[in-house]
Amino acid sequence: MTTTATNRQVILKERPVGIPQARHFEIVERPVPQLAPGTVRVRNIFLSVEPAMRGWVNAVGNYSEPVAIGAVMRSFAAGVVQASNVAHLPVGTWVTGMFGWQDHAVVLPEEIGRIVEERDLPLSLSLGVLGINGAAAHYGLTRIGRPNPGETVVVSTAAGAVGSCVGQIARILGCRAVGITGGEAKRRLCLDTFHFDEAVDYKAPDFEEALARVCAGGVDVYFDNTAGPISDAVLKRLNRGARVVVCGTASIANWDPPPLGPRVERHLLVKRASMQGFVIFDHKECEQEAFQQIASWLREGKLCHVEEILDGIEHAPDAIAGLYRGENLGKRLIQIGDITST
Amino acid sequence: MTTTATNRQVILKERPVGIPQARHFEIVERPVPQLAPGTVRVRNIFLSVEPAMRGWVNAVGNYSEPVAIGAVMRSFAAGVVQASNVAHLPVGTWVTGMFGWQDHAVVLPEEIGRIVEERDLPLSLSLGVLGINGAAAHYGLTRIGRPNPGETVVVSTAAGAVGSCVGQIARILGCRAVGITGGEAKRRLCLDTFHFDEAVDYKAPDFEEALARVCAGGVDVYFDNTAGPISDAVLKRLNRGARVVVCGTASIANWDPPPLGPRVERHLLVKRASMQGFVIFDHKECEQEAFQQIASWLREGKLCHVEEILDGIEHAPDAIAGLYRGENLGKRLIQIGDITST
Repeated sequence: MTTTATNRQVILKERPVGIPQARHFEIVERPVPQLAPGTVRVRNIFLSVEPAMRGWVNAVGNYSEPVAIGAVMRSFAAGVVQASNVAHLPVGTWVTGMFGWQDHAVVLPEEIGRIVEERDLPLSLSLGVLGINGAAAHYGLTRIGRPNPGETVVVSTAAGAVGSCVGQIARILGCRAVGITGGEAKRRLCLDTFHFDEAVDYKAPDFEEALARVCAGGVDVYFDNTAGPISDAVLKRLNRGARVVVCGTASIANWDPPPLGPRVERHLLVKRASMQGFVIFDHKECEQEAFQQIASWLREGKLCHVEEILDGIEHAPDAIAGLYRGENLGKRLIQIGDITST
Repeated sequence: MTTTATNRQVILKERPVGIPQARHFEIVERPVPQLAPGTVRVRNIFLSVEPAMRGWVNAVGNYSEPVAIGAVMRSFAAGVVQASNVAHLPVGTWVTGMFGWQDHAVVLPEEIGRIVEERDLPLSLSLGVLGINGAAAHYGLTRIGRPNPGETVVVSTAAGAVGSCVGQIARILGCRAVGITGGEAKRRLCLDTFHFDEAVDYKAPDFEEALARVCAGGVDVYFDNTAGPISDAVLKRLNRGARVVVCGTASIANWDPPPLGPRVERHLLVKRASMQGFVIFDHKECEQEAFQQIASWLREGKLCHVEEILDGIEHAPDAIAGLYRGENLGKRLIQIGDITST
């Protein structure tokens, strides 16, 4: 592993309105933090980049306090315990948690999100299919979407970390999976790698017609990662009793004030349909079941994942904006160390 | 009972766009229909007037086929069996069903919605608190809203047949009931007769401030009978885990195309909230429990009802438009006969 004499940190420099851009961050070098009693020092190997991080830096009401100006950017990271004052977290333990966009984090045991037990699988997966992306896909689909075999499950951002997992779990559960994604490369990824039954490109001029064609029998579950016009098109095709799982709103740059869209009440009433939002952090108790199932599916080759690993912390400041530009293929990570030399 | 030599019928003359007005109907006189084998003839005493009847005459996709031009206006009615070829439905039985806006209906036993057993209570109630209004209030609140004691339940069209029942059941269940209604007379009705904890007038210039004041602790259940700007104001105040019950859309005159409103996805996500539509006709199996409870509450004086009874079938053509003008106080009915002389 690259040893760093200092602790490089990505700091929030100013508060963005809407999507955070590279200019809102700066990289600083600080001393490596000292181990205190009862803590461990984690050497981060992978930093996560999530659409949700947009919300973490915005001042508008959200599910967590906004990151303070001058603070290390909040983020999931996966790393290795490098120094320890905690008996059950010896040096070498693989861990994930909200360690932030930095090389090193000194944390209390209760700040460890998870000890990664699946050491036969790459550590990076613990930020994707074996992290909140997989947990969100599994929880949202199975607990809120509750699909029955033979039903049609539509998911937006289908080539992304959550969406690709939703589509594959839907198929494992015996459903027909329809992915919505942007551009032909991602559409091919959905069909060829993630094996969706159908995939449509929302950027194509015939998007609505294509969606109608592949959802001729209607939509039973819609796993919504985008909101906006993509969702408006899906909502028109709901079947009676349909469930809409509201997991993300990636297509809306700014919610202050909320943008206008076609009212949904009549769809919900006439179709006896439901829309329900969830935040995966509320459902820690469901993680273990989700990760056990997903790890099995990964080992059996039933579930594929795609990662896009940016090399070096200097890619962090622009990484969220890049997600919203739709430039990533699969789960976006930043690698800032090398696990083999830990 | 007034005996009519002929059968007066209110016919749909032309198809309205939006709210049906008096000019869309005409009253005709036809012969009293003959009793056929296996049928009963019902003398209608009360005809119902529901907001939902707007949808039944519109061509836009809905939960039932639109009423044909030239056909009797579809409606609930309560009446008395006047002639019978069916053993278990003797002359004198009180019944409700989709008998239409007319004096007489010859129907098969399976077309009888319900035999009214509560003969100690007025027959008219079987079209209101002991009919679909009460059933919708009970089902929507208890099965979808699922309020816990101490929670705040907000209901729109609070002085109406469904809304007033929702507010009173919420209080019986130990909740705080907040009603939204139009005008000071209806606001007083909510407070003085239906004993809501708070009531606000959506027509008042300070509606949003008043709502904020009476919902300072947020909204746990919103029973939505209106959609539109009233609902937009309530959705801003949802508590975490709130349930929005979509029962009606009275404030929207035309859904073709759906009007624009602030997008709801972010509220649902950040508040981990749900919105769910229902149509009470799907839940016949829950009626008996609802009516037994409501009848008990009525007899114990725990639940009040207010009716506005229009006298004579000539009031029918304008009666739906009047509902949407907000001119009724309580459940609107049309009386076209007299039960005592049956």
